[in-house]
Amino acid sequence: MRVGIIFGSKSDKDIMKNAGVALKEFGVEYEVHILSAHRVPEKLTQVIKEMENRGVECIIAGAGLAAHLPGVIASQTILPVIGVPIKAALGGIDSLLSIVQMPKAIPVATVGLNNSYNAGMLSVQILSLKYSLLKDKLIIYREEMKEKFIAENEEQIEF
Amino acid sequence: MRVGIIFGSKSDKDIMKNAGVALKEFGVEYEVHILSAHRVPEKLTQVIKEMENRGVECIIAGAGLAAHLPGVIASQTILPVIGVPIKAALGGIDSLLSIVQMPKAIPVATVGLNNSYNAGMLSVQILSLKYSLLKDKLIIYREEMKEKFIAENEEQIEF
Amino acid sequence: MRVGIIFGSKSDKDIMKNAGVALKEFGVEYEVHILSAHRVPEKLTQVIKEMENRGVECIIAGAGLAAHLPGVIASQTILPVIGVPIKAALGGIDSLLSIVQMPKAIPVATVGLNNSYNAGMLSVQILSLKYSLLKDKLIIYREEMKEKFIAENEEQIEF
Amino acid sequence: MRVGIIFGSKSDKDIMKNAGVALKEFGVEYEVHILSAHRVPEKLTQVIKEMENRGVECIIAGAGLAAHLPGVIASQTILPVIGVPIKAALGGIDSLLSIVQMPKAIPVATVGLNNSYNAGMLSVQILSLKYSLLKDKLIIYREEMKEKFIAENEEQIEF
Amino acid sequence: MRVGIIFGSKSDKDIMKNAGVALKEFGVEYEVHILSAHRVPEKLTQVIKEMENRGVECIIAGAGLAAHLPGVIASQTILPVIGVPIKAALGGIDSLLSIVQMPKAIPVATVGLNNSYNAGMLSVQILSLKYSLLKDKLIIYREEMKEKFIAENEEQIEF
Amino acid sequence: MRVGIIFGSKSDKDIMKNAGVALKEFGVEYEVHILSAHRVPEKLTQVIKEMENRGVECIIAGAGLAAHLPGVIASQTILPVIGVPIKAALGGIDSLLSIVQMPKAIPVATVGLNNSYNAGMLSVQILSLKYSLLKDKLIIYREEMKEKFIAENEEQIEF
Amino acid sequence: MRVGIIFGSKSDKDIMKNAGVALKEFGVEYEVHILSAHRVPEKLTQVIKEMENRGVECIIAGAGLAAHLPGVIASQTILPVIGVPIKAALGGIDSLLSIVQMPKAIPVATVGLNNSYNAGMLSVQILSLKYSLLKDKLIIYREEMKEKFIAENEEQIEF
Amino acid sequence: MRVGIIFGSKSDKDIMKNAGVALKEFGVEYEVHILSAHRVPEKLTQVIKEMENRGVECIIAGAGLAAHLPGVIASQTILPVIGVPIKAALGGIDSLLSIVQMPKAIPVATVGLNNSYNAGMLSVQILSLKYSLLKDKLIIYREEMKEKFIAENEEQIEF
Repeated sequence: MRVGIIFGSKSDKDIMKNAGVALKEFGVEYEVHILSAHRVPEKLTQVIKEMENRGVECIIAGAGLAAHLPGVIASQTILPVIGVPIKAALGGIDSLLSIVQMPKAIPVATVGLNNSYNAGMLSVQILSLKYSLLKDKLIIYREEMKEKFIAENEEQIEF
Repeated sequence: MRVGIIFGSKSDKDIMKNAGVALKEFGVEYEVHILSAHRVPEKLTQVIKEMENRGVECIIAGAGLAAHLPGVIASQTILPVIGVPIKAALGGIDSLLSIVQMPKAIPVATVGLNNSYNAGMLSVQILSLKYSLLKDKLIIYREEMKEKFIAENEEQIEF
Repeated sequence: MRVGIIFGSKSDKDIMKNAGVALKEFGVEYEVHILSAHRVPEKLTQVIKEMENRGVECIIAGAGLAAHLPGVIASQTILPVIGVPIKAALGGIDSLLSIVQMPKAIPVATVGLNNSYNAGMLSVQILSLKYSLLKDKLIIYREEMKEKFIAENEEQIEF
Repeated sequence: MRVGIIFGSKSDKDIMKNAGVALKEFGVEYEVHILSAHRVPEKLTQVIKEMENRGVECIIAGAGLAAHLPGVIASQTILPVIGVPIKAALGGIDSLLSIVQMPKAIPVATVGLNNSYNAGMLSVQILSLKYSLLKDKLIIYREEMKEKFIAENEEQIEF
Repeated sequence: MRVGIIFGSKSDKDIMKNAGVALKEFGVEYEVHILSAHRVPEKLTQVIKEMENRGVECIIAGAGLAAHLPGVIASQTILPVIGVPIKAALGGIDSLLSIVQMPKAIPVATVGLNNSYNAGMLSVQILSLKYSLLKDKLIIYREEMKEKFIAENEEQIEF
Repeated sequence: MRVGIIFGSKSDKDIMKNAGVALKEFGVEYEVHILSAHRVPEKLTQVIKEMENRGVECIIAGAGLAAHLPGVIASQTILPVIGVPIKAALGGIDSLLSIVQMPKAIPVATVGLNNSYNAGMLSVQILSLKYSLLKDKLIIYREEMKEKFIAENEEQIEF
Repeated sequence: MRVGIIFGSKSDKDIMKNAGVALKEFGVEYEVHILSAHRVPEKLTQVIKEMENRGVECIIAGAGLAAHLPGVIASQTILPVIGVPIKAALGGIDSLLSIVQMPKAIPVATVGLNNSYNAGMLSVQILSLKYSLLKDKLIIYREEMKEKFIAENEEQIEF
Repeated sequence: MRVGIIFGSKSDKDIMKNAGVALKEFGVEYEVHILSAHRVPEKLTQVIKEMENRGVECIIAGAGLAAHLPGVIASQTILPVIGVPIKAALGGIDSLLSIVQMPKAIPVATVGLNNSYNAGMLSVQILSLKYSLLKDKLIIYREEMKEKFIAENEEQIEF
């Protein structure tokens, strides 16, 4: 079980690394590529094919501005593609709309602004349909999340 | 392989039925429920559990306005949840933001406004990781989509 | 007379504490809980019931992003619920719309962005219908607010 | 137990009458006034005082465009004021922001766009703190709403 | 010839003082008041009347958030009222829409976000209809503005 | 006392004629021109000069889309220029922002979307500084508006 | 001199045909293709190459929603690409932002919402740098536009 | 081959200089002017004419707020005009809409927010139709961009 992570610039690394954090928590392998739909389209096409051959089963793509990367990837693979809108010059509404409003038949599973952790999480949930080990881990994760949340917030808050 | 479709009102049926259209094209069974996170929360919780027991592997949820339904479902299951923002009083931006901007660890895979067909499609892509039959069908679907697109648009357009 | 204050993360404490400031000014007791509609839904349900049993008469809920917390609380109690949209990744319009655009029959009384003081104030006004002592205090508060405003701004402003 | 409903023009009557529908369901008396903060400010002030004298305990105010009416009322009474943003020339975002973004100490309890039914409902919830009869009715209302929702949506939906 | 400047809080002074800068350039007297439509409505009404009696011929009002101040002033005087939307929690679009979208018959002459200088300038242009001295000064001002602009930008810019 | 009204296309006539309605009510003469800042800039410049020579004292300019007309006029005259944003392809927010966000020193007095009546009204208020007859009429107008408003809305509204 | 026009669906034909209207007025040949960046990416790549071989010197691309088509074309050719945002589910702001916010080095020359006529016009202006015949025609066109505008609007408008 | 660059204030120099960076890379001469459509309209008209006489073939114009400069230039020349929306008080959406939404027949080729580099690039692409040397350079530029992108991002990214 393996996830591919693609984004367009080293400057997006800090935002996107939380996808890796989530995947590591579940022991899911991943590979990271910096690729641009507009600058290196052929390389992008090639890497998508290689990913499929290496057994990647889900692709996470982060992009800002006129964020075409997730949609262009989605048009070249039948793997589920998860889009992470990255905040840029116009506050992020440009990235979000450029990713989520895909035309009929080529969906991109869009998560929240800069929320690459959720992209990692969603890919784990998707993979868990096939890999029951992940299902078990997700159940435990949710339980632990609850317990941790409750433990952390147990003491009476005083204003 | 079975998908659950949930939305909050009969008035959303016309928008949401395209999810069923997509699923039928791929021979994926689905069940449809009208449920509200705010009006019948216990019933919603119960149906989610029943769905899991019946082998539902992916849930599509459509909602408008302060569209909490997909997120509330996502908090109660580890199945992938796909959210369809439905256009309402404020043009749909309310529905979209209420669905996509989920907090850390509980993602909703959001598709475009009113685009339930893509929600169906995305669920097929997700299921195809496990059911290789769907993978074959997706490859054929994409090929046929291309051929059909080209055939339909072959004749020279004249303005 | 007692108000419950709920929000989803310690990081929201600085925004939400002004609700407490307002309540203290009127001598209204309050209790504060950090709870999440998505992470600890059962705990949330339990605390709402406990609040009702402890005599809480109004609940203030603050949330950011896809801010479901106030609406989810409102669906589980008949107490008036006041929602405070908290500014986050998209400038706060996401929080505001996710809180205010509630469906028919389950209202959330929404106040301005980050304006938890007004949530405290509104809860005092609501409680004052029943507790006439608060009514008297509100009349005095308004008078003093006016006097203080005039006193503070009496001296001629010079640019 | 009595609620005041104020809005600025006969053309808003169709939107605002649903507040009355909600109040009637709970047997709460109400009075309706067409008044404008900008055109008849003195008359508005006078009616607010009269309302208070007649025992009105909550005021619902609907307004569109630069929707000042709810805020102006709120500045002249300590009764809880519920604001209903009415959709107009700019899609309603103008009305919503003009109502919800009130300054410190003068809150308006804002409900969704055109959603006067929820304003009626919220006023019932507020009054129920004092009038326990309404509390009982609210509990029954919620139960019946659930039952009705489930009954109406029981039959299997087929796409 | 005299202009009144009103705004709601000392914290807006830095934004609003540029109105005074413009007025000083033209030798127009002005008076500055901190007043709130919501906190001291009677005082506001009183000051508007006093201004009229003192010969104020144009009122500049700055406000943020649900910026009712300019509209409330406009409803109480037939003097031209110029509104300055002040940037606050939601980026200023709330202030702008709350000021500009006034209902029929009670206009507010709205200028750009935080642009109190232009409010001062507009009031000079308005007064110049009556005071021909200002007309002469405006013609000179425009000429000098052009000359100054050209002089300042004469040297060749090199990147 | 004379007002100039300029807009860019016959298709805007229905929106803009309400400026004339307001001016007629006060007996203010006006002249109407269809002119475009982009298509006939020299003609526009010429008409502005002619207007000034004919004694026009205030110019109302309506425009949609990238609504440059009011700003371009303002840059060519020291007369007060009132801008009317006209609703077009993007709901009117484009027109509004293109008109109101003028740079330092060249203000446009902006009124609400499509609200040419208020532009007429504002020009009357501006002219009334010089023409005391208009001041008297404005006071009567406001009184009559109040009386008419009260008379029209006197009967008890029943939902 | 030849322009290529590409858009993604027959349903966009009515919007896009005005590009042809503009080109015909200047005697510029054009070819029209319905192609999708997401459905037939290889065909798109092929047609772009063929266009270049046939001497196309400028490409106009219209698209709605997550409008990737113009940007994807721009990444595959060094010809100037003109993007026409087409109004769809979210009012067109999605299309506009998806087209205009291109990353560094791959620009799309974006025109107004649905304004394919201006795309045609812009391509004529671009081609006129090389083909001086077009320059002459543009000068005449502008002159005639002015004359026609003045002629059409010569008669006094009466409200 | 020569490009003109115009913007309205020295404070925009840092944003606009990237247009020069792009032009220098291709050896295209350029001239830079600080000019305002509103403050020095006659000077602007004069410089546009001089530019045409000096052989300028494309004009880049940057502007913020109610960004009329590109459109006003476009109305005075048949040269292609490229508009750069510059971020200001309202986040840049004002600048973008004021530039891109031009009326029929007077297009402005709009690029992304603050993206003057792309304006430079687009002008090179436009000039390359006439100057085949630029075409060769663009092909090399694109190739080098790809190679550089791949080289820079070759090493495996590790989170």
